[in-house]
Amino acid sequence: ADIASIFTGLTEPERLFAFNLLLRQNENLVTETLGEMEPEDAARLLAHLDPPTIAKLLQGLPTDDATELASQLPPELFESVMALMYVDQSADVLDQLQFDEDTAGRIMTPNVFALHEDMTVSEVIANLQRKSDELEMVFYVYVVDDRHHLVGVVSLRELLLNPPSMPLKKIMAADVISMPTTADQEEVARIVGQYNLVAVPIVDEENRLVGMVTVDDVVDVIREEATEDIYSLAGVDTDERVTTPPLRSLRLRLPWLHVNLITAILASTVVYAFQGTISQVVALAVLMPIVAGMGGNAAIQTLTVAVRGLALGELTWDNSKRIIFKEVLVGMGNGVVLGVVVAVIAWLWFRRPILGLVIGLAMIINMFVAAFMGILIPLVLKRLQADPAVASGIFVTTFTDVCGFFSFLGLATLFLKWIQ
Amino acid sequence: ADIASIFTGLTEPERLFAFNLLLRQNENLVTETLGEMEPEDAARLLAHLDPPTIAKLLQGLPTDDATELASQLPPELFESVMALMYVDQSADVLDQLQFDEDTAGRIMTPNVFALHEDMTVSEVIANLQRKSDELEMVFYVYVVDDRHHLVGVVSLRELLLNPPSMPLKKIMAADVISMPTTADQEEVARIVGQYNLVAVPIVDEENRLVGMVTVDDVVDVIREEATEDIYSLAGVDTDERVTTPPLRSLRLRLPWLHVNLITAILASTVVYAFQGTISQVVALAVLMPIVAGMGGNAAIQTLTVAVRGLALGELTWDNSKRIIFKEVLVGMGNGVVLGVVVAVIAWLWFRRPILGLVIGLAMIINMFVAAFMGILIPLVLKRLQADPAVASGIFVTTFTDVCGFFSFLGLATLFLKWIQ
Repeated sequence: ADIASIFTGLTEPERLFAFNLLLRQNENLVTETLGEMEPEDAARLLAHLDPPTIAKLLQGLPTDDATELASQLPPELFESVMALMYVDQSADVLDQLQFDEDTAGRIMTPNVFALHEDMTVSEVIANLQRKSDELEMVFYVYVVDDRHHLVGVVSLRELLLNPPSMPLKKIMAADVISMPTTADQEEVARIVGQYNLVAVPIVDEENRLVGMVTVDDVVDVIREEATEDIYSLAGVDTDERVTTPPLRSLRLRLPWLHVNLITAILASTVVYAFQGTISQVVALAVLMPIVAGMGGNAAIQTLTVAVRGLALGELTWDNSKRIIFKEVLVGMGNGVVLGVVVAVIAWLWFRRPILGLVIGLAMIINMFVAAFMGILIPLVLKRLQADPAVASGIFVTTFTDVCGFFSFLGLATLFLKWIQ
Repeated sequence: ADIASIFTGLTEPERLFAFNLLLRQNENLVTETLGEMEPEDAARLLAHLDPPTIAKLLQGLPTDDATELASQLPPELFESVMALMYVDQSADVLDQLQFDEDTAGRIMTPNVFALHEDMTVSEVIANLQRKSDELEMVFYVYVVDDRHHLVGVVSLRELLLNPPSMPLKKIMAADVISMPTTADQEEVARIVGQYNLVAVPIVDEENRLVGMVTVDDVVDVIREEATEDIYSLAGVDTDERVTTPPLRSLRLRLPWLHVNLITAILASTVVYAFQGTISQVVALAVLMPIVAGMGGNAAIQTLTVAVRGLALGELTWDNSKRIIFKEVLVGMGNGVVLGVVVAVIAWLWFRRPILGLVIGLAMIINMFVAAFMGILIPLVLKRLQADPAVASGIFVTTFTDVCGFFSFLGLATLFLKWIQ
């Protein structure tokens, strides 16, 4: 783990060099380091090695980590590595790859400690002794029936506190919380957090135990999802890190900036339409960025609260009507307060009271639009099964730019004879 | 936990009503629900009850949760509640309040299962049996010497696999990872995530065991810190949720919008200085929001990657020089690509090639500033021990607005006779 964190501080060539050095010295350490690194970074390092070495390293990893890494290798390399791994281990990886990305099935480990309900405490302990090395983290024993259906759970603490002859059936908690393989990883993280679990068992559609997700994977999921939300709001690709090489960063950021450019031009065409008005009152050009910019900022506030609320499960389609109403109220409140402030400033600055009135009204209109769009757009995206964070920012600020310029310059055109 | 999530969907008065109902029916359930709710929300509900009831409820919670709630009560209420609690329990809460907010000492639970190194496995099990109910989550037994110094750790699994007469000293792992009470909670979360721990022991300055932080608290910390980062970047108060009442939301958002207003006016004064140029070429008013807006977006991209990199420990003061250089390269690259695109668009739109040249150059300059400020400002804030996310966005976009307007309108003024 310490090595993994040193690795993140290195450049790509330095990393490769250090990695090869480590590989010759201590293979176990390499395996451990791979498991702790960002999967993208680890896969990029692996791709430089020959297939037999990769196969050997992947075999040393827990199945979920091996699957994650293997899935990021180039297709031909993936094929040859799979062919070189032990059949049971490559089968585990291939099985896991059948689940969709970001689901419980994909992040679970299939090596789960499950025993039959008729076993006694002493038999469990004997079993635990035998499998001691294979298992990732053991804190619970899951209890299954003849057909491997999950029927209960026993904590290690329970095992310690009960006599050796006691069957699991008698001491297990039958109301075990489990999740299907198809569950979204965010949902798994939410459940683990809500019930303070250390691991959650994963079952197939017939309630047969197929794996478990441990809390360390949940911690990764939470970090990953938080990064995704933050990045999506800012229009940054989720694969990017501070250590991403410059050319790749450029390629990742340019598409988004081009989308931004199109929306910026869209807003400019509104200004273009009012060129005549601006040429008569240049003060409008001075003040118009304030209306658009303030609307954008207010919209981003609303949007951020909404996106985070959706991620944490506090905002749902069901309670959305009340929250939309609330946000619109807040938006109007902001608009009135800031509209008055800006109106007074514009009036004093340019000594034209009507210009103050125009900008004040435009602010109120734009703050209303900012709040309404800031809450509506992520909700609608979520409803359409899209990520509510991605592209929300750009849609919302396009609305506030267009509306800010239009309401301000439009009102100014109406009142033109009084502000000239 | 289920009740807590239902509660988050209710309005304030509904919540209070449901809470009182629940209180009369089932006090244990109330305690559990309080532990799972957002502390701010829970404290607001508690504040409506009389001190004896609050005292009783707090006594039912783990010390860390009770402390967190108690710290959010109004001062007089806090005093009277403390006076009504059992002395040992209120002492625990008061002890914990001596640690700074957001440190390991504040989020740890002092009820840690620690035993002397000379104890045998069977004695440990007897102890575990006796304390079964008091302890929050037991997965490890921490091992201490005569003066309560932390000397090792034994997992419950180890206990199961060893004979009853074995002393802890012989089976413990001596290289136990621990953290001081003064450690930042983010640091604790990082360590727990890095080493895949389920709990980390907390020691005082003399390495005496005083508590532990469990992974469920870490999950909360990670969520909280992610929310803080997202919110700070958008200028939203960290206490706000979608369910915050409208008036409170308004009060929380207005200060930030006023700061934004000041910076927006600052940018406007740059435009004001160039009123003469704009009145001669109104096309400048049409194009100037593009330069400023694109710079702002590029800056936010850089800033977001930097803030996240700082939070995840991938960006440090030590490797900052290389990352600054990289970001500036990416910024220049973005500037050249987008500058050419915008130059061509402006040229075709207004049929003035020199206007295209001016906006292209201004874009390159502003993209450079965006990248440089986007990485430098969070680094400097971090260096000054401030939160790198908070206010970064506003500083950075102020720079890009001012610089965007200044470079574009300034260049336009220089080339005025060719673009008229």
